Amino acid sequence: MHALKVTRQGDFPEWYQTIVREADMAESSPTRGCMIIKPWGMGIWERFQQEMDRRIRETGHENYYFPLLIPLSFFAKEAEHVEGFAKEMAVVTHHRLKQMDGTLKPDPEAELTEPLIIRPTSETIIGDAFSRWIKSYRDLPLKLNQWANVMRWEMRTRLFLRTAEFLWQEGHTAHVDEADAMEETMLALEIYRSVVEDVMGIPVIVGEKPENERFPGAERTYSIEAMMQDGKALQAGTSHYLGTHFAEAQNIRYQSERGDLAYAHTTSWGVSTRMVGGLIMVHGDDDGLRVPPRVAPWQIVIVPMLRDTPDDDAVLNYCSALQKELAKLSAFGEPVRALFDRKATKAATKRWGWVKKGAPIIVEVGGRDVAGGNVSVLRRDRLYRADGKTDSAIVARDAFVADVPAMLADIERTLYSEARAFVDANIKRDITDKAALEAWFNADRPGWAEVNWSKPTGAALDQVVEWLKARKLTLRNVPLDAAPASGACIFTGDAAVERVLVGRAY
Amino acid sequence: MHALKVTRQGDFPEWYQTIVREADMAESSPTRGCMIIKPWGMGIWERFQQEMDRRIRETGHENYYFPLLIPLSFFAKEAEHVEGFAKEMAVVTHHRLKQMDGTLKPDPEAELTEPLIIRPTSETIIGDAFSRWIKSYRDLPLKLNQWANVMRWEMRTRLFLRTAEFLWQEGHTAHVDEADAMEETMLALEIYRSVVEDVMGIPVIVGEKPENERFPGAERTYSIEAMMQDGKALQAGTSHYLGTHFAEAQNIRYQSERGDLAYAHTTSWGVSTRMVGGLIMVHGDDDGLRVPPRVAPWQIVIVPMLRDTPDDDAVLNYCSALQKELAKLSAFGEPVRALFDRKATKAATKRWGWVKKGAPIIVEVGGRDVAGGNVSVLRRDRLYRADGKTDSAIVARDAFVADVPAMLADIERTLYSEARAFVDANIKRDITDKAALEAWFNADRPGWAEVNWSKPTGAALDQVVEWLKARKLTLRNVPLDAAPASGACIFTGDAAVERVLVGRAY
Repeated sequence: MHALKVTRQGDFPEWYQTIVREADMAESSPTRGCMIIKPWGMGIWERFQQEMDRRIRETGHENYYFPLLIPLSFFAKEAEHVEGFAKEMAVVTHHRLKQMDGTLKPDPEAELTEPLIIRPTSETIIGDAFSRWIKSYRDLPLKLNQWANVMRWEMRTRLFLRTAEFLWQEGHTAHVDEADAMEETMLALEIYRSVVEDVMGIPVIVGEKPENERFPGAERTYSIEAMMQDGKALQAGTSHYLGTHFAEAQNIRYQSERGDLAYAHTTSWGVSTRMVGGLIMVHGDDDGLRVPPRVAPWQIVIVPMLRDTPDDDAVLNYCSALQKELAKLSAFGEPVRALFDRKATKAATKRWGWVKKGAPIIVEVGGRDVAGGNVSVLRRDRLYRADGKTDSAIVARDAFVADVPAMLADIERTLYSEARAFVDANIKRDITDKAALEAWFNADRPGWAEVNWSKPTGAALDQVVEWLKARKLTLRNVPLDAAPASGACIFTGDAAVERVLVGRAY
Repeated sequence: MHALKVTRQGDFPEWYQTIVREADMAESSPTRGCMIIKPWGMGIWERFQQEMDRRIRETGHENYYFPLLIPLSFFAKEAEHVEGFAKEMAVVTHHRLKQMDGTLKPDPEAELTEPLIIRPTSETIIGDAFSRWIKSYRDLPLKLNQWANVMRWEMRTRLFLRTAEFLWQEGHTAHVDEADAMEETMLALEIYRSVVEDVMGIPVIVGEKPENERFPGAERTYSIEAMMQDGKALQAGTSHYLGTHFAEAQNIRYQSERGDLAYAHTTSWGVSTRMVGGLIMVHGDDDGLRVPPRVAPWQIVIVPMLRDTPDDDAVLNYCSALQKELAKLSAFGEPVRALFDRKATKAATKRWGWVKKGAPIIVEVGGRDVAGGNVSVLRRDRLYRADGKTDSAIVARDAFVADVPAMLADIERTLYSEARAFVDANIKRDITDKAALEAWFNADRPGWAEVNWSKPTGAALDQVVEWLKARKLTLRNVPLDAAPASGACIFTGDAAVERVLVGRAY
């Protein structure tokens, strides 16, 4: 018996939606394709954001805020330069509503001379600013970051994973040359890896995207790829070296130390609320979500077990004092986030509510605990004993308090290790022909395959991509730490030059 | 001689624009009416946001995120219920661009069946959620907060003060009855007062708005009003008790403890990036901005004075060590924010650059300082000595470091006290007739007048408002801590019941 009505094995997509709902993280909104993010989902995002923001600042980036709306002409410029330019965007055409024939409508007299686009990303408007701000090599590097909402019209949406509007961070930088821009591209990638692995507890494979998966206009695109529990890949962050392509399209030039004019080399990189969906699919289990302590809005929740007797006061006081003491502790360099759940709900309902939300530690306190100076402790990462019962341990209150920082660190580590073991166990590295690859992906729940790759381009690459697409497969990335390639590429038969990851993807 | 080319006395609006530009806080964007917020402006907003967010959470509110776009029909519903409904809004009508006749245009085949509006505020979409989420008295109070960008089409814009898009915080809450909702309304108002006064160093007058200045649909509107150095008022935050008006329009009902259905009482309250403009107009002087230490992105800036000699290394090392030591200190319960400015610019240029930005403490270090174990300290709140020279003091390095937390606290206090003294000196309280009021506002730089007020309504109020409007005057608020009214209302001649503030306003 589990807390959720659906299991990962039974129906993974339905299990995902169930967690989002039961953990009260987000819901669909009356605006098609957009979501309402609720406190438990928002709190995880805010923790992630805070950790990310600190590292971005510490590495010399500064936060800016650019307009939500971008003039249409900026995209016309980009459309000329960038193949694969996406056109599904929200277009603002009027600036006034008017009551006409009894109904409220866009006022025909308030039509904009130039339509405005809700940013799908801010490349063009930031590039325009770069072209004005950058004059000399002394202005470089220019390293900026923005936290913003962006919008891409999506027909098939899924909470957190794919929504028309989402929240994200976008870094945009300009440099004197390729070496400096590439250093930045890899720096951003390492920031992503460290926050996603060390804070979200999600193991990733860091690598370069093959040509067909590059960001339009990018010279090189790198990604971190996370494996969900259904074996599919989620691209959890990308970092692009754009060469001088955008600088040429937007005239971002600087006077070099020698006095001549040169195009800047630019980068961009982003990570979004999609990560929250990834966290669910990596750490959730059949009882609900399990939130790594570093991003948990509440790390410890105290649930009083009341009996509507005069003894209840002692329980409430005991809980209140415990909460205050826990809040004074420090874990991961920050105050511990402990909640005393005073809601007028049954203790068992609360317990299972917090299990489904995935609070790392649930502490239950009843009259007997108070009398004995104890607490009943439930760790979300090890909910059941071998006999199938919930593993709630009665512990001396003071010993528990003293142990909290270490326990939180251990939960954080455990969630990461479990997920890492899952990834390691589900990447197949010994496939040497297409038939074997196809067989692997016909299995019930395959993971990924890492295979030899000749790095074809043009038509040869297209052929590979089509073969994969017919099998709902994609090239994920070329892991930076992969073993050297040897033998023949399993797709082209040519000599392999590197190893590439193949998988199904979100 | 001052660092800015224009003085407050000479041309206040131009002086304001000059600070925004010279302190590099923001600039106009290619998107009409919208701004690009740059790191120094953004950093101030982020500090403000952080302090506000903490207090909002500590008082039991949780952060949500609602969609940027709101279906048109939501406003149709509101337009029926709310007189004074504003119609200047950005309207999204298409979801795709298409290359047609060689130009990029909204695709006629991608017209939305129902237009979407960029939120001017989220009242309607949050109200809709409230109507779904609130079933029983047990669901109340529901206290939520959102940090978001909003948009109101503005024809005449001014950076920070009035822009089409701006960043803000909006609180929305629902309660069982008036008493609870009013307690919330006043709680939000007190949060605003405390952050604006204690953190931004901006003294405010807390009071209730007269009927004509209420938020459309509000039962009671409260505001904090700040006085700019030109004597004008800036509404720096509002808190509304909405009664059951919005609940009725949006069907927000709950089952009471007795079992009957009742409308919830709601509140809303907001504060925006407008505050950054207010900070400039309250604390700026003719040398630039002066940022209160609690919101300063950098509280201390270290400027090395280099001579292109081998001694420079010693200066750089000395500065670097100083920065590290300062960063270990704590002020206002947080690590001190100290920057070592290594840019390749002349020391004098840097000094005046930081003066214009208003960094609270500027530390200059030259070879002689290193030799003597000293630093040269410039406090931005007392830039000049009596003889007109800059008041740079040579201080022993260790004594300076030990003094930093106290010095920052002193600067914070000084900026607030100066501003408070200015407000106190510029509210005239002894005017007893309209002629005297008119004369007061015909003076060169008047402040506000607090006068006796009979609280007229309807046509009588309209008459007063028109008389004031003809003189570019507005009713600001009825201060909560005003002395009791006595005698006759200066506008109506009727017996006064309270005292109201009159002033010009932004």
